[in-house]
Amino acid sequence: VDDAAALAARVLTGDTRAVAKALSLVEEGGTGVEALLRQIGAERRASRLIGFTGGFGAGKSTLVEAVGACLLERGERVAVLAVDPSSPFTGGALLGDRIRMNRLASGGGFVRSMATRGALGGLSGAAGEAIAVLEAAGFDWVLVETVGAGQDEIDIAAEVDTVVVLLPPGAGDDVQTAKAGLLEAADLLVVNKADQPGADGVVAALEGMVALGTACDWVPSVLRTVARTGEGVEALLEAIESHQRHLDGSGRRDALRRTRRRRRVEALVAELAVDLVRANDPAAWTSTLDAVAAGELDAYTAARRLLAAIGRRA
Amino acid sequence: VDDAAALAARVLTGDTRAVAKALSLVEEGGTGVEALLRQIGAERRASRLIGFTGGFGAGKSTLVEAVGACLLERGERVAVLAVDPSSPFTGGALLGDRIRMNRLASGGGFVRSMATRGALGGLSGAAGEAIAVLEAAGFDWVLVETVGAGQDEIDIAAEVDTVVVLLPPGAGDDVQTAKAGLLEAADLLVVNKADQPGADGVVAALEGMVALGTACDWVPSVLRTVARTGEGVEALLEAIESHQRHLDGSGRRDALRRTRRRRRVEALVAELAVDLVRANDPAAWTSTLDAVAAGELDAYTAARRLLAAIGRRA
Repeated sequence: VDDAAALAARVLTGDTRAVAKALSLVEEGGTGVEALLRQIGAERRASRLIGFTGGFGAGKSTLVEAVGACLLERGERVAVLAVDPSSPFTGGALLGDRIRMNRLASGGGFVRSMATRGALGGLSGAAGEAIAVLEAAGFDWVLVETVGAGQDEIDIAAEVDTVVVLLPPGAGDDVQTAKAGLLEAADLLVVNKADQPGADGVVAALEGMVALGTACDWVPSVLRTVARTGEGVEALLEAIESHQRHLDGSGRRDALRRTRRRRRVEALVAELAVDLVRANDPAAWTSTLDAVAAGELDAYTAARRLLAAIGRRA
Repeated sequence: VDDAAALAARVLTGDTRAVAKALSLVEEGGTGVEALLRQIGAERRASRLIGFTGGFGAGKSTLVEAVGACLLERGERVAVLAVDPSSPFTGGALLGDRIRMNRLASGGGFVRSMATRGALGGLSGAAGEAIAVLEAAGFDWVLVETVGAGQDEIDIAAEVDTVVVLLPPGAGDDVQTAKAGLLEAADLLVVNKADQPGADGVVAALEGMVALGTACDWVPSVLRTVARTGEGVEALLEAIESHQRHLDGSGRRDALRRTRRRRRVEALVAELAVDLVRANDPAAWTSTLDAVAAGELDAYTAARRLLAAIGRRA
């Protein structure tokens, strides 16, 4: 706890080495991160939290780098968090080369790739804690991007204030079948690689979708960018700022923050309950899971039995 | 429980109306699904479980329909489960028109779109339970597809035996930065819309990635399809069957099944713990979450306090 207090104090001064260390703790999970987050919890400041989501081929990394570079030029403090949801398979492998982020890092931006831990804490848990660290460190902007095979767009959307959904040229057909989910998640819709064939079709499909929507207070704009050349990036940043002003003006930013905090408690109750049940009687845990694995016991009965055991304790 | 037994018995005969009703229970969650799954748990048969993942623009629905139609022509019993992870926002909205699945449904396939319930049960929980119902109903093949804005590829990958990752033409650059996660998740890599510009680049990038891989027992193939015309669909089905034979021959199918069952218990302990804590003292739950939302209490302290209360009970 003394270590956690010292680290928290350094994070709060914006010390980037301390921030990097704190993010490693978040990545590892466990008691280290709990102590740290208890220390910085109350001190949390408010960064502008922008999420960038979208599937393969949309060019997320390049666009995030371009937006980040724009902000750095204005003298803003910028952190990029690239979340890799592939780690449930490897148990924590970091991304290899994030070469395309070089420009940002060398320009004074803080760039961090981060694996998520296991299925239960999940992407949103780890990303949410990482964001808490970056907010405590006083970054003006935190740009969150998912990379890898999994695109937990919804999870990330829940952790940020402004959700930018990227679509690749040629995705027109898919827009038709997924309009509900897209409209719900997106604050801004961006067709990146807008100089490539098929971009017009996607823009048209998105504009049609937005026109049909029943959004009451915020209507997502449809933008075109070519992140590679920087085309449209300033306009995107203006649209992001416009959405941020909307959040401030409507009280929506505060509402989002409160909702995230509530959800975090629920997720932690779930996560810590599993730890408690396992630690309560490791032998029972193992034998119960073995029985379920062998098909001798159903999962619900097993879970109820394990939970009843911690209720009987005390 | 009597209702659950009757419904379970009908599901086990393969009655599609009973299957549809059971899937609605899964979607709703709660005690209904627990009773049902306890009944069918031990009777669960083994379908071939194939997951189709990939971002917007990859043409998943069309490809799943084409693969399903191929299987139906061979006289196989086929179910398609289209999982919509957008529902954490709407609390259970179903997809609108799934027009592209019409061919399958009219050809005797069972097609079901399904929203997931909330963040905690999550995509994999609901999808896993839906798959259990479909297996109990005796389908030879269950094709699982995610739709909507979120692409919980990793979650779905964990619930099936064979993971087909689709990439759109033009995704070459992204393959470079995400190779680790992709390789881990994919049993088969498919560049759909292979008649469009950019397909060669993606295929080359994927083949380079696979060649660099260190997979010991199964090397993912890279395939090209044009689902719209049916080109390459037979070859994809052969590749899927080849992977299925590999799973059977290596004992890997059984290992996957055991792992899934273990993970399910863990997820249920988490999910049911939240229910227990909330039901144990609803007023304390509300006031604690309010305090966290207002920034007066940190989430870890709140979660520990709520969990301690169920430990002290009994």
